[in-house]
Amino acid sequence: MRTHYCGLVDESLIGRNVTLCGWVDSRRDHGGVVFLDLRDHEGIVQVVADPDAAEAFAAASAAGYEYCLRVAGTVRKRVSVNDRVKTGRVEVLAQSIEVLNAARDLPFALHENPNEEMRLKYRYLDLRRPEMQRMLRTRIRLVQALRRQLDAAGFQDLETPILTKATPEGARDYLVPSRVHPGQFYALPQSPQLFKQILMMAGFDRYYQIARCFRDEDLRADRQPEFTQLDMEFAFVEERDVQDFVEALIRRVFKEVVDVELAAPFPRMTWAEAMRRYGSDKPDLRIALELTDIAEAVKGVEFKVFAGPANDPQGRVAALRVPGGADLTRREIDLLAEHAAKHGAKGLAWIRIDDLARGREGLTSPVVKFLDDAALQAIFAATGARNGDLLLIGAGAWKTVSDFMGALRLKVGRDRGLVENAWRPLWVTDFPMFEYDAEAQRYVALHHPFTAPKVDDIAALKADPAHAVSRGYDMVLNGNEIGGGSIRIHRPDMQSAVFDLLGIGAEEAQAKFGFLLEALKYGAPPHGGIAFGIDRIAALMAGTDSIRDVIAFPKTTSAQCLMTDAPSVIPEAQLKELHVRVADVGAKAG
Amino acid sequence: MRTHYCGLVDESLIGRNVTLCGWVDSRRDHGGVVFLDLRDHEGIVQVVADPDAAEAFAAASAAGYEYCLRVAGTVRKRVSVNDRVKTGRVEVLAQSIEVLNAARDLPFALHENPNEEMRLKYRYLDLRRPEMQRMLRTRIRLVQALRRQLDAAGFQDLETPILTKATPEGARDYLVPSRVHPGQFYALPQSPQLFKQILMMAGFDRYYQIARCFRDEDLRADRQPEFTQLDMEFAFVEERDVQDFVEALIRRVFKEVVDVELAAPFPRMTWAEAMRRYGSDKPDLRIALELTDIAEAVKGVEFKVFAGPANDPQGRVAALRVPGGADLTRREIDLLAEHAAKHGAKGLAWIRIDDLARGREGLTSPVVKFLDDAALQAIFAATGARNGDLLLIGAGAWKTVSDFMGALRLKVGRDRGLVENAWRPLWVTDFPMFEYDAEAQRYVALHHPFTAPKVDDIAALKADPAHAVSRGYDMVLNGNEIGGGSIRIHRPDMQSAVFDLLGIGAEEAQAKFGFLLEALKYGAPPHGGIAFGIDRIAALMAGTDSIRDVIAFPKTTSAQCLMTDAPSVIPEAQLKELHVRVADVGAKAG
Repeated sequence: MRTHYCGLVDESLIGRNVTLCGWVDSRRDHGGVVFLDLRDHEGIVQVVADPDAAEAFAAASAAGYEYCLRVAGTVRKRVSVNDRVKTGRVEVLAQSIEVLNAARDLPFALHENPNEEMRLKYRYLDLRRPEMQRMLRTRIRLVQALRRQLDAAGFQDLETPILTKATPEGARDYLVPSRVHPGQFYALPQSPQLFKQILMMAGFDRYYQIARCFRDEDLRADRQPEFTQLDMEFAFVEERDVQDFVEALIRRVFKEVVDVELAAPFPRMTWAEAMRRYGSDKPDLRIALELTDIAEAVKGVEFKVFAGPANDPQGRVAALRVPGGADLTRREIDLLAEHAAKHGAKGLAWIRIDDLARGREGLTSPVVKFLDDAALQAIFAATGARNGDLLLIGAGAWKTVSDFMGALRLKVGRDRGLVENAWRPLWVTDFPMFEYDAEAQRYVALHHPFTAPKVDDIAALKADPAHAVSRGYDMVLNGNEIGGGSIRIHRPDMQSAVFDLLGIGAEEAQAKFGFLLEALKYGAPPHGGIAFGIDRIAALMAGTDSIRDVIAFPKTTSAQCLMTDAPSVIPEAQLKELHVRVADVGAKAG
Repeated sequence: MRTHYCGLVDESLIGRNVTLCGWVDSRRDHGGVVFLDLRDHEGIVQVVADPDAAEAFAAASAAGYEYCLRVAGTVRKRVSVNDRVKTGRVEVLAQSIEVLNAARDLPFALHENPNEEMRLKYRYLDLRRPEMQRMLRTRIRLVQALRRQLDAAGFQDLETPILTKATPEGARDYLVPSRVHPGQFYALPQSPQLFKQILMMAGFDRYYQIARCFRDEDLRADRQPEFTQLDMEFAFVEERDVQDFVEALIRRVFKEVVDVELAAPFPRMTWAEAMRRYGSDKPDLRIALELTDIAEAVKGVEFKVFAGPANDPQGRVAALRVPGGADLTRREIDLLAEHAAKHGAKGLAWIRIDDLARGREGLTSPVVKFLDDAALQAIFAATGARNGDLLLIGAGAWKTVSDFMGALRLKVGRDRGLVENAWRPLWVTDFPMFEYDAEAQRYVALHHPFTAPKVDDIAALKADPAHAVSRGYDMVLNGNEIGGGSIRIHRPDMQSAVFDLLGIGAEEAQAKFGFLLEALKYGAPPHGGIAFGIDRIAALMAGTDSIRDVIAFPKTTSAQCLMTDAPSVIPEAQLKELHVRVADVGAKAG
């Protein structure tokens, strides 16, 4: 239907007849002539219709925004060159214009910044915008680059099932009623975790898949009910084998797709160090601010708020020095305290340092009156505080303080423009094996129940689970956990022991994970792997905060597709075939 | 953990120390020495453990089938060369053997041909068999080759949603209850059909996806509840643009993956011709037999069984000449009649031609007595019947006769070894737009309701829907429909007219396909595409009849995963969160 793409018409074609197909991006009537910008996926080109070609002129005159046209004409040099577009030195003088499809008035102007609800409802229009085309093509090139590398390295791209078994561990499953087996359900996979481990036991050696995963969680802005991960697994490996391979992989695809050189090698940090210095297991290293532990400085003070946690092995007292932060108003400091409270803080202490030379006179703070001079000096020494700085101080349970001080660090860094314009990847390693869930009164797995502990000795693991370190690792980039993985348990006795520590009894383990325990008994190889969040990496590469910009048909935060109106009500007869009934529904079900 | 792969140890390594990881494929104790075949994904190598290395010898002596071992040793020349394996000129003298994991007694011997139920239950063992590795790797190479070609041709690999809207048209949907929207459901896609059309309207120009699709149908041996298709769509194209591109694509991947040269160009046949000559819309051209219409020959006979359909424009009288078929016994002919009956025949006539020179004496048949000489001569002339042949004759409604005579043609071809060992692709085109469903008393779409008719004129289409021809096309290979596609409707008025002819009223169309009708109003481009069945093509390439052999974790014909035991019963509390209850379930739900 066409001889060339609009966006690729250039001076080499001057004098040639071309046929183009595309959409009317804009129209100007000027001096008795109609100028159209015709757009396709490659870009736009100017089409000129003058009254000499009467039918073409009439069609051009009638064409509105987003009409779909087929234009035949001759390429000629443009009088007034437009250097902002690739085709700006030429134009096409139309001989004929065929309207392939008209367009009614648009619900929003493509050149303006439409609101997201309209964008999602009319996604086919939103996606025509060059900015959306660019972002989605970045994602496509990311996936292509990953596949090319992995195919070349001998990884086997194997598909695992979408209709699979429910394993109520971790997030909520999406369920699918079975018609053939009344009362039974499939689950959509939260990840292909167990299938990829089985593939290693099946001798495939190296596996990858660009895999769709599903979690029925309450959505936050950066979550989708279905998401895509690069899922990988390696047989006969240790941590560094996996890490070194995928670090090189990620470095190559960043270079190839967005021409970014990532640090070689990535810095490495234990989980304990990341929590101590940054109050986060996914520290954003673009922000130079660090937390300082000041427990030593305040152990002896009478102020119980500080001295209590300082003397408690489970406690923490940490300071964040905000350079130049003395310019913050009381109101601004109150907002920081509110932010800390949202992240679990019961209170936030602060010291404004106006002039150290003036002693206590030079300080403004609600807490200095509770601190003796020695403690103050020790705090200033530990944090390197200087005139004009603000110190924020958190005290309490170790995990809580780390969390809210980490959140404050991010907020201060962003609010004060302290986020370096750079790519700062790192590895976080040596995670705790278990976290104690005080509410459920049991241990839960920090990664997942198939992650191997560092110790090989089951007795040693059982003796002190609270301090057990796992063989898990995360790849972090600019404050995002972009990949997470581990060496897996490959011995059936160790897997049973870990289930046991997680409070999963033998019977429950058998019902949920019987096939895994069985498979481990037939010569399962040592193995490990990792999974990367494709949506997030694509968003980072495309320079957008929202993963919805790199997903063709995303859902809203209430898990709806505004374009197709999914989910929707289903006729009762159809549900009956599936042996289910709708229950406990109020007005919404209409 | 290893320096080399087992299957790649060769003479260049003689004298070198290597470390290998793999599974014990077999063990022989011979002359005070233990010989192990150690297997990994690349193949097997012989490991020798002699008593000089006492620990290695003990480990080798204790190792059973499928133990997972790590072996360090020295490569040496083998005394008795084994040319059946790549590594047969060398062996590895073990210095140390580490048992990475033991294996209990296997549920079946990997070297024998286990039954499929055991294979599916212990899929991790089944997949270790080199034959399964070979077949799955064929599939992987197929997908790689397709992607490479399509990426190079500028197709955009875009993901479409799995949680999408129910469109109760075609097969049954799998449904997913929504937790957030009580009483509402997502559906898993039967194909990304509407999304890919929307992507063309969104300006992506050329799209592909290796897409998972879902149909809740009663399974036959060659069906799976979830299956994979290569889904493609092109903007601004006509039939031949799509067909020529994908024909070249398929030809290249067959060459690349299995070194097969397919015909260039593929033969082309209208649907009417395929039904007439082969009684099938997916004719297996490897069988040279063809049907012959003999209505002209029997129009004038008194035998109503023939004369009725011969004089009815909706009827058909067709003969299949079985060369040398006079050797069939009465019992064998009866079995053919039973086969025809299974495919809709009310009866099957036949004429055995012992000796034409002897006139009626030389014929055996239950029907010749009803036929005059002129009719018989005309039948023999039309079919080219010769001494020793058998003629099978069907008469009745055109579609029914075509179907059962087509089925007979396949059965005779297979039973009598008339299936050529060859690859015989073709295009089938010019399908009817609609089929009349006598039971529902309405037209149904032969492809799907988005397929464009050949006529552009809505009035002409409405005037004679029974004879409307669509712009659909199928690619057929050796009797399998491996791909099907069409040019789509891109005008909103035509789409509404087709919905109307299909008995989908304006309100229903709006509820189900409102977003499509809306999208067509904003300059939708002409577009078309195709989808290929990856499972079937992979099975054909791998030389297996069963698509389950090219799916890592297939389901049974009752849609179960025997390895994980999916589907399964779900706790009531979890269902309650999803606002559904199990209904109408008998004993099976326990």
